[in-house]
Amino acid sequence: MINFEEAYRKVMQHTLDLEAEAVGLLNSNGRTLAEDIVADRDFPPFDRSTKDGIVINYSALEKGVNRFKIEAVLSAGMPQTTLVDTANCMEIMTGAVIPENADTVIMYEQLTIKNDVATLSKKPTKGQDIHKKGSDVVTSSVLLKKGKRIGAAEIGVLASVGKSKVQVKRLPKVCVVSTGDELVDVDQVPLPHQIRKSNTLSLFAALQKEGIMAERLHLTDDRKVITVTLSNILKDYDVLLLSGGVSKGKFDFIPEVMELLGVQKVFHRVAQRPGKPFLFGKQEETNTVVFSFPGNPVSTFANYHIYFLPWLQKCLGLPQKEKEVLLEEPIRIKPPLTRFIQVMVQVKKGITWAKTIRENGSGDLTSLAYSDGFICLQPREAEYKKGEIVPFVATRN
Amino acid sequence: MINFEEAYRKVMQHTLDLEAEAVGLLNSNGRTLAEDIVADRDFPPFDRSTKDGIVINYSALEKGVNRFKIEAVLSAGMPQTTLVDTANCMEIMTGAVIPENADTVIMYEQLTIKNDVATLSKKPTKGQDIHKKGSDVVTSSVLLKKGKRIGAAEIGVLASVGKSKVQVKRLPKVCVVSTGDELVDVDQVPLPHQIRKSNTLSLFAALQKEGIMAERLHLTDDRKVITVTLSNILKDYDVLLLSGGVSKGKFDFIPEVMELLGVQKVFHRVAQRPGKPFLFGKQEETNTVVFSFPGNPVSTFANYHIYFLPWLQKCLGLPQKEKEVLLEEPIRIKPPLTRFIQVMVQVKKGITWAKTIRENGSGDLTSLAYSDGFICLQPREAEYKKGEIVPFVATRN
Repeated sequence: MINFEEAYRKVMQHTLDLEAEAVGLLNSNGRTLAEDIVADRDFPPFDRSTKDGIVINYSALEKGVNRFKIEAVLSAGMPQTTLVDTANCMEIMTGAVIPENADTVIMYEQLTIKNDVATLSKKPTKGQDIHKKGSDVVTSSVLLKKGKRIGAAEIGVLASVGKSKVQVKRLPKVCVVSTGDELVDVDQVPLPHQIRKSNTLSLFAALQKEGIMAERLHLTDDRKVITVTLSNILKDYDVLLLSGGVSKGKFDFIPEVMELLGVQKVFHRVAQRPGKPFLFGKQEETNTVVFSFPGNPVSTFANYHIYFLPWLQKCLGLPQKEKEVLLEEPIRIKPPLTRFIQVMVQVKKGITWAKTIRENGSGDLTSLAYSDGFICLQPREAEYKKGEIVPFVATRN
Repeated sequence: MINFEEAYRKVMQHTLDLEAEAVGLLNSNGRTLAEDIVADRDFPPFDRSTKDGIVINYSALEKGVNRFKIEAVLSAGMPQTTLVDTANCMEIMTGAVIPENADTVIMYEQLTIKNDVATLSKKPTKGQDIHKKGSDVVTSSVLLKKGKRIGAAEIGVLASVGKSKVQVKRLPKVCVVSTGDELVDVDQVPLPHQIRKSNTLSLFAALQKEGIMAERLHLTDDRKVITVTLSNILKDYDVLLLSGGVSKGKFDFIPEVMELLGVQKVFHRVAQRPGKPFLFGKQEETNTVVFSFPGNPVSTFANYHIYFLPWLQKCLGLPQKEKEVLLEEPIRIKPPLTRFIQVMVQVKKGITWAKTIRENGSGDLTSLAYSDGFICLQPREAEYKKGEIVPFVATRN
């Protein structure tokens, strides 16, 4: 048995190298950029009007002109034009190109128009209300760096520079496997000694949030069946997430089958609660990483968020965001196990507070629906005080 | 022009009544529960062993028995059995049903087994290591209340009680419409006076995160085309999200077309920056809500998160989570506009700090890719101080 920090470190040492793949722009939402995105042109690409009004050549004003004959109306989407006479003006709409020989925009609110002549009611400043070409970004600037997670804002940037295909990090192929003869399908009515599958569905939903469409599989507690099936699965998947069959029971075949299949055991059992009988390994030949979690719902759910998610983020090259919260009540943690305790969090005046929720042992599934994550507490002599800052593993968002 | 609070209140007064629909369990991820979920049986459904070891009848121990003949091995998934002789024991695995006439589990670590006889090395407590039937939840208890957002934890609960179909709130049918003759498709090389569409793609991606697959549409700045198209769109959609065409320009046809099509204007123009020329209305006959945002990227993005998202959450019956952050630097806000300022947030010791990012006017799209949201600052005489708590509109999870 190893301690939590060591287990975490070992998991993070076994990341996979996920190569890049091209996806369509709208399919890149939620994925991780695998290329730097550069500006293909200046932004804005031309001097553009930021107001609706007229556009003039400021020198006319300096020569004493205050009434401007309107030559034309310019709207966004029209090619650049030229004033025939720089003593005249053109009406111009937001987003339109400033004429070659004009330099100042005056909005409607600061002029009157009568018989196609605009009269200024307020003296403008030279160059006002123009968004200058390249003032946001010049051609070839890096707009988004590789390793950034793509969201709605990034989609907008990618669209602006014409990335209808985007290079993103490939997601790992994951197979979620449950074991246990007591488990029946969700749509079945269980006999008194049976329960419905829930862990693999919960893991499937959690992976879905990461954009991963996992394969789901159930194995009966039969050494031969488990061996043959996992042998095939290892060949086809980057990651195996197993739930159950990893404790000390007579029918907990996973550890011996893993060994038989050449999965190198990195560790088995961690000094933590919940989630102690966690087996982590790697099959080097097939390059498959195996997370074998204990079968009870809270243990599986906790270890998925404690180990698998940070591991996935590291594989994708995303930054690890360590979170911390303040304790809303004192807690005492007796040695020797690191404890992960379910909490609800509440943000009050910019400060995130954690309140423990009723937990009825690690078999209580409903508690997860009321918690926002786990606080991580190391055992120690002194009581954890109210207001103390402790690490937090979020299980929502 | 109305102020921000009034605009917000009016938007929230025009929510839609979204009825319930049934979806398959795994499709319910991210959706909102439209029914209370009750336990169809006790949890656990039987007295179950929480350890691997043996199970005995404690009275035998009281009669002086310390060595127990093993009658059988019980594993999870086996129907309930009975000890033939209560002076004997059975081996039992985690998750297995406790025999009818047994009441205490002793784990392997506290006994030795030789020739099918188990000898205890430590005196157990009566009833230990048994997860009692119904101790988590009793039949008919409400496990999840309607109005809860479904995530991975809730999927686990729903699976446990056999909900292969779940009643969830219907999502609104949304059409995202851009206007502007300067806009070309993402895969096109724009002419010097043109730019690529980005707002509708950004909105599409934002809606996708809410589980909404929006329709996207582009309209040229032609009154007739806009009128005919929007007239049809109103009949088919619950929500229109428009970007552009709503300012004071000569080709900003949206306000007059809306009026023509019977969309009741709730307000047009809000005393805020960015996002001032926001038109909000409702077509009562078709029961369509119209959010018509100004065309620049930051304005559209800001108003989507400031108005549309809270509106959607209210329609779904989800709680409104008001967020607050602490200012990392002093800021002065001159009257009269409410300002929404882009910030990056950082959590340090459980406290969320906001730092403003370089913004180059509301046309600067790239800034959105580096911000986590907007702080909302009301204009006032006194400077906003470092460390002051201000409202925050998140644009990332």
